[in-house]
Amino acid sequence: MDALAAHIDQNINARIEELSKLCAIPSVSARRDSLKDCAAAVRAMLQLRGFDVRLIETGGQPVVYGELGDGPRSLLLYNHYDVQPPDPLELWTTPPFQPSRRDGALYARGAIDDKGEIMSRLAALDAVLAVLKRLPYRVKFLIEGEEEIGSPNLESLIREHAPLLRADACIWEAGGCDENGRPEIVLGLRGLLYVEMSVRSLEYDAHSGHAHALPSAAWRLVWALSSLKNQDARVLIPGFYEGCRCPSLNARQPIEDLQSAVFSPTCNISGVSAGYTDHGSKTIIPAEARCKIDFRLVPDQDPEDVAVKLRAHLDRLGFDDVKVVTLDRLRPAMSDPGAAIVRLAAQAGKAAWGIEPAIVPLAGGSGPMAFFVELLKMPIVSIGCSYPGARKHAPNEHVRLGDFARGAKHLARIFASF
Amino acid sequence: MDALAAHIDQNINARIEELSKLCAIPSVSARRDSLKDCAAAVRAMLQLRGFDVRLIETGGQPVVYGELGDGPRSLLLYNHYDVQPPDPLELWTTPPFQPSRRDGALYARGAIDDKGEIMSRLAALDAVLAVLKRLPYRVKFLIEGEEEIGSPNLESLIREHAPLLRADACIWEAGGCDENGRPEIVLGLRGLLYVEMSVRSLEYDAHSGHAHALPSAAWRLVWALSSLKNQDARVLIPGFYEGCRCPSLNARQPIEDLQSAVFSPTCNISGVSAGYTDHGSKTIIPAEARCKIDFRLVPDQDPEDVAVKLRAHLDRLGFDDVKVVTLDRLRPAMSDPGAAIVRLAAQAGKAAWGIEPAIVPLAGGSGPMAFFVELLKMPIVSIGCSYPGARKHAPNEHVRLGDFARGAKHLARIFASF
Repeated sequence: MDALAAHIDQNINARIEELSKLCAIPSVSARRDSLKDCAAAVRAMLQLRGFDVRLIETGGQPVVYGELGDGPRSLLLYNHYDVQPPDPLELWTTPPFQPSRRDGALYARGAIDDKGEIMSRLAALDAVLAVLKRLPYRVKFLIEGEEEIGSPNLESLIREHAPLLRADACIWEAGGCDENGRPEIVLGLRGLLYVEMSVRSLEYDAHSGHAHALPSAAWRLVWALSSLKNQDARVLIPGFYEGCRCPSLNARQPIEDLQSAVFSPTCNISGVSAGYTDHGSKTIIPAEARCKIDFRLVPDQDPEDVAVKLRAHLDRLGFDDVKVVTLDRLRPAMSDPGAAIVRLAAQAGKAAWGIEPAIVPLAGGSGPMAFFVELLKMPIVSIGCSYPGARKHAPNEHVRLGDFARGAKHLARIFASF
Repeated sequence: MDALAAHIDQNINARIEELSKLCAIPSVSARRDSLKDCAAAVRAMLQLRGFDVRLIETGGQPVVYGELGDGPRSLLLYNHYDVQPPDPLELWTTPPFQPSRRDGALYARGAIDDKGEIMSRLAALDAVLAVLKRLPYRVKFLIEGEEEIGSPNLESLIREHAPLLRADACIWEAGGCDENGRPEIVLGLRGLLYVEMSVRSLEYDAHSGHAHALPSAAWRLVWALSSLKNQDARVLIPGFYEGCRCPSLNARQPIEDLQSAVFSPTCNISGVSAGYTDHGSKTIIPAEARCKIDFRLVPDQDPEDVAVKLRAHLDRLGFDDVKVVTLDRLRPAMSDPGAAIVRLAAQAGKAAWGIEPAIVPLAGGSGPMAFFVELLKMPIVSIGCSYPGARKHAPNEHVRLGDFARGAKHLARIFASF
């Protein structure tokens, strides 16, 4: 086992170099930028390791799928090669798509989410292949290109290719340690309903000297927004909390305060805009106002049901002028804590990180985990090489090289014992 | 008098040409762009008419001041050469600073507000000088460069140069006809308090998977905003309506519904922004949220007093995290409807527009009128060549050439009879 760790440490500079090249590709799925290029780069990286690789076309961006190893059993790895938009650019110390290594970390959009995770997994595989020579089971690597926009084509892909993708367990795409360096084994993800709300009250912006007489899109949106959630963070949409499962039913071990808060669904404003927002003053009644809202949902809330309740809530309060368009939706998912893969991940995590891992029944983020749990009926654990300060989705996203190595060693131990 | 009108009509193409050149200068005061160039152009235009011109330096942009004519009496004209920002650019049919003549109108930022008004006045003066040869009183032309940012340096300029600026009456910078083509004689302007409110709740944008645990600047701002005004347009800041004068005390003639609504002070959102507002979805908790609010104030509200009450209101509700910065403030002003200049403007307006003018005690917009009324003690009327569809402050701002000529004829008759 020391040989695996030694191989990872000896090759870390080469892997960070390889990761830098991947992060230089601005594969922003929200902008449909460079995704084909990035899929090709990922495909080449898998082929280099001996994977049998194919690009599976979807209605949107291609999925990179590769298989390696032999045997009746299989382990599915899920990752994604697309990244979040890099804005606001001015807050990056170095440009988001010019990866910069400094202070023991690599800085770039995607350095951790999710290109860093992909590379850490390849570092683990490289070690296993170098030291053990062969895998007595199949590793199935599924890397999609639309995770950051809600994986709109993944469900149909899984339905169509279920026999190909079926496995005995799945390693999910994100994870790492908490603020104290304790590794986490995550068993579930919240669901997501992402909507854009907009109001248009005028054909064009008007002089605000008419504000006593003309309707205001901005005020309408502010009032509609303030009807959604009170200052105690309670969502006010009738029926919103219906179906929320109590955390004590789902976890073997006591859930700490921090973890139990994750079982509260949220209503977050990701963005809002109307009118003049540049320097100085401009006196207008904005013709239009827009906002983006994301709801993080817990088992067993359903995003389609919440969307219906949101519309009904707005209509009931007279906000029929507020248009709502759903951009993304994902169901929440949670795996059984008693599955064998959970025990294996916990043992391997303790050996690799030097600390007993925390079992986290539900993480705060979202992903298309429900498709795998519901359609492929497999247990899933999420592990990785991140930490709470990694600035995922934010300026100065980075991966710490020590975490990168520990995450790789963690997975290498799972590979060796699976 | 027909000779004056004929001169204006015969020279209108030359004046629109001259106006186009002026509008091509992007003198956006909010961005401190091209203001010196524009002041020089205006100065040259006055010099061409024989004005004795000087640039008066202020702490900000220079004031163009010119005098023409002889005699003990004088008439002050107030205008401004700066314009509003042109955003949103994509909604302009032709670029804002490439003036375009079509459909009987000239389209450009500043085509009406206020470069079109300046040019219409010069067309009136050209006619008077050509037909009557001399002015038996002095015309004092004051053209500032900071009206669109709240005239921050005008009060001290007026205090310093009061003897120079004193006059028997003042013609204000904006006016024209209503939607039925009826000319308006405006006697007052609302005051203005323009503030920027902002909340910063995080050092950097965070992944919205943490929304159950982290504070949200956007929600804080939405809640603070919704505390300012209810859906019946009632401003909820305690004491906000103190000092509002009843319109019936101020006007000789019955005030129509539309006019009385102007006596309601307003609270308008000119702009609001937070987080991700581009295409597609990005799931973040924005670190910061900002908005721009303009309050239009009526006699005798005071902007400084309203600013104090706004701060107290926010603090009382626990919004001490909401930062408020005042960008502009102007006091409301209203002249005596019985002044001689009002009668003269009404008679001249009837002759030039062919319809009995409406006397409007208070207009919806704002301007530095109070400095003149309070410090120089002169009666003021606002007339001009605009109409309600002119899209002041908005994309596709324009002046209709017929209005341009009628406004010029209106002022030429005042010049001839003053």
